[in-house]
Amino acid sequence: MPKIVDHDQRRSEIVEAFLTVVARAGLAAATSRAIAAELGIGTGALWHYFDGFDEVAAGAYRRITERTNDRIAVATAGLRGLDAVYAMLREILPLTKETLDEAHVVVGFWGRLAANATIEEKQTDLGEYWGGLLRRHFAEAVADGELDPSIPVADVLDVLFAICIGQQVNAVMASPMVDPGRQLAMIDHCLRPWRR
Amino acid sequence: MPKIVDHDQRRSEIVEAFLTVVARAGLAAATSRAIAAELGIGTGALWHYFDGFDEVAAGAYRRITERTNDRIAVATAGLRGLDAVYAMLREILPLTKETLDEAHVVVGFWGRLAANATIEEKQTDLGEYWGGLLRRHFAEAVADGELDPSIPVADVLDVLFAICIGQQVNAVMASPMVDPGRQLAMIDHCLRPWRR
Repeated sequence: MPKIVDHDQRRSEIVEAFLTVVARAGLAAATSRAIAAELGIGTGALWHYFDGFDEVAAGAYRRITERTNDRIAVATAGLRGLDAVYAMLREILPLTKETLDEAHVVVGFWGRLAANATIEEKQTDLGEYWGGLLRRHFAEAVADGELDPSIPVADVLDVLFAICIGQQVNAVMASPMVDPGRQLAMIDHCLRPWRR
Repeated sequence: MPKIVDHDQRRSEIVEAFLTVVARAGLAAATSRAIAAELGIGTGALWHYFDGFDEVAAGAYRRITERTNDRIAVATAGLRGLDAVYAMLREILPLTKETLDEAHVVVGFWGRLAANATIEEKQTDLGEYWGGLLRRHFAEAVADGELDPSIPVADVLDVLFAICIGQQVNAVMASPMVDPGRQLAMIDHCLRPWRR
């Protein structure tokens, strides 16, 4: 069994090297050659661990999901209600260098997915996980008198998710909509009708 | 000058062939070989007209924008206010086979853009064009008593655009959020607080 552990660890190192190169030099620079150089191995060695670049991109997408969920756990620790909602969305929206870099990797992956339906993806599960967290924090916000109990939570969640996804693309397009204040204003706008 | 006309026409034919193959067999099938076969030319001939596949993808993205704007013009002819708003958004959201195919091309292009910032793109101009149309129709809706004059139009537009972009991605991910009724419910939800 130790060989399997090594295999998984090497795959993880390759994905981390990919994200390191992206953070330093951008997605365009994160070629298989650059990833191999980052690890001090030959380019061909990458393909002992991945069947192609689509698989590396999918691994990076999953790793970004894990990172985001780790950041959400830290950022929302001890918070409830709307404070927790905003803390969570601030880790998902592309507001910083880190999350803007992630947006490029994520949109790059979605582009590969558009052209290759056989790539594994877990976005639906992510929606369920984030949806569960947000439902809990909305319920706290209602209980604490921050939100009106009439808030249509399912509709608000759909709109918030669509915004979070759309803003990844806006980050890549360097749209004026990626201005951090404007991004948070969209969230404010969606919640305002039910604020107390 | 006739050579330039022929050059532009051939580029246009190549982009149309790309979109024809996507409609028939999906984005994964729309390789340079398949595009050339569709036109009855050699694959190498494509590269007399385009510098690479990123350029073909960018041309297809622009062509989809033009198609969408043409459809919007037809769908909104004679309409005003909220009828025009909904007619317009129905042409943008991925609700049909045609617009779902377009979503794959569009997201595929965004993925290329994420990895290559030198690709030309015009999304900001598109936002201005659509924003201008929507502002006019919102003003009509207010004048006709369909919407409350207090509607914060700029915020609503940002949210509607983010939804339209996010839904392109949801289409590619085959998310439950791409259900047509659920897509239109998001638009309803965004307008409901100001409906009269």
